[in-house]
Amino acid sequence: MTAHEQTILDLIRDVPDWPKPGVVFKDITPLLASPEGFAAAVDALVELAPGPIDVVVGMEARGFIFAAPVALRLGAGFVPVRKPGKLPGAVDEQSFALEYGHETLTIHTDALWPGARVMVIDDVLATGGTIGATAALIKRQGAELVHVAVLMELGFLDGRERLAELGADTLSAVITV
Amino acid sequence: MTAHEQTILDLIRDVPDWPKPGVVFKDITPLLASPEGFAAAVDALVELAPGPIDVVVGMEARGFIFAAPVALRLGAGFVPVRKPGKLPGAVDEQSFALEYGHETLTIHTDALWPGARVMVIDDVLATGGTIGATAALIKRQGAELVHVAVLMELGFLDGRERLAELGADTLSAVITV
Repeated sequence: MTAHEQTILDLIRDVPDWPKPGVVFKDITPLLASPEGFAAAVDALVELAPGPIDVVVGMEARGFIFAAPVALRLGAGFVPVRKPGKLPGAVDEQSFALEYGHETLTIHTDALWPGARVMVIDDVLATGGTIGATAALIKRQGAELVHVAVLMELGFLDGRERLAELGADTLSAVITV
Repeated sequence: MTAHEQTILDLIRDVPDWPKPGVVFKDITPLLASPEGFAAAVDALVELAPGPIDVVVGMEARGFIFAAPVALRLGAGFVPVRKPGKLPGAVDEQSFALEYGHETLTIHTDALWPGARVMVIDDVLATGGTIGATAALIKRQGAELVHVAVLMELGFLDGRERLAELGADTLSAVITV
């Protein structure tokens, strides 16, 4: 682990029993509050870009915090993936299963184009549901999902395997916890 | 209006009758999709900082898209203001009235400190409810709200006057529509 990675890890706070008993939540707000820590995290995500990127896609809401700065740094456009009812105009949507029930994500139908080189940035890879749905939305517009980069991978979940099944197998994480 | 401001204005899309009949929604997604436009918007917000800033506060969800890059550019920490149930640990909360019903925003109780120089960044100033509630949360931690900067002010609403009544009167907008 590099010094930067250790700095990032040290600024992630464990919150026991949140949002429910038995779960230890990884809280990134101390990292965001640290100018050095936040910059190191964005630097690390930028370095994971495999060549030129046309569009960075980020998911509501925490994903925006990392995806927007990475887009600016890469000179790419930024496209938000949002919950239903948030994007005006024509949208495509994709649902995915949660532990109880399901969630739906949307993207503008004119957000991408065939052959666009797209990178997905998110804060956390957990079970892979959000990223998997986002990958499906990207591919339906004919764009090329060249890489998925997350700040933190929860390695004890099966997110990486699930994404590989979905064809979003070019994934890297800054740190794994 | 400068060339940069005109560039930004040209990339904001009017969506008629959204989210309801009679409303013209100002859609910023074309601006975000343009690497030059998005960079110009963040540059313009950064230039509105009146001296050193310790913390940039941004509000869920669209506010994150501008507030996070501005925090990085200013070398400030980033503190998210979120909807209830999203921030783990102890939070303070503030409600405000909407046209129908009300909304509540939360901040971590340990997010700021007395004397901290805080700048609020948001995409749109409409009626001022979100920014007013955020200003109250900031002041309750003893921090100094040195400036509020928004990308776009909807000048036909009374947001600026309402914020002045709340004591958040140091506000500037990149463009007014």
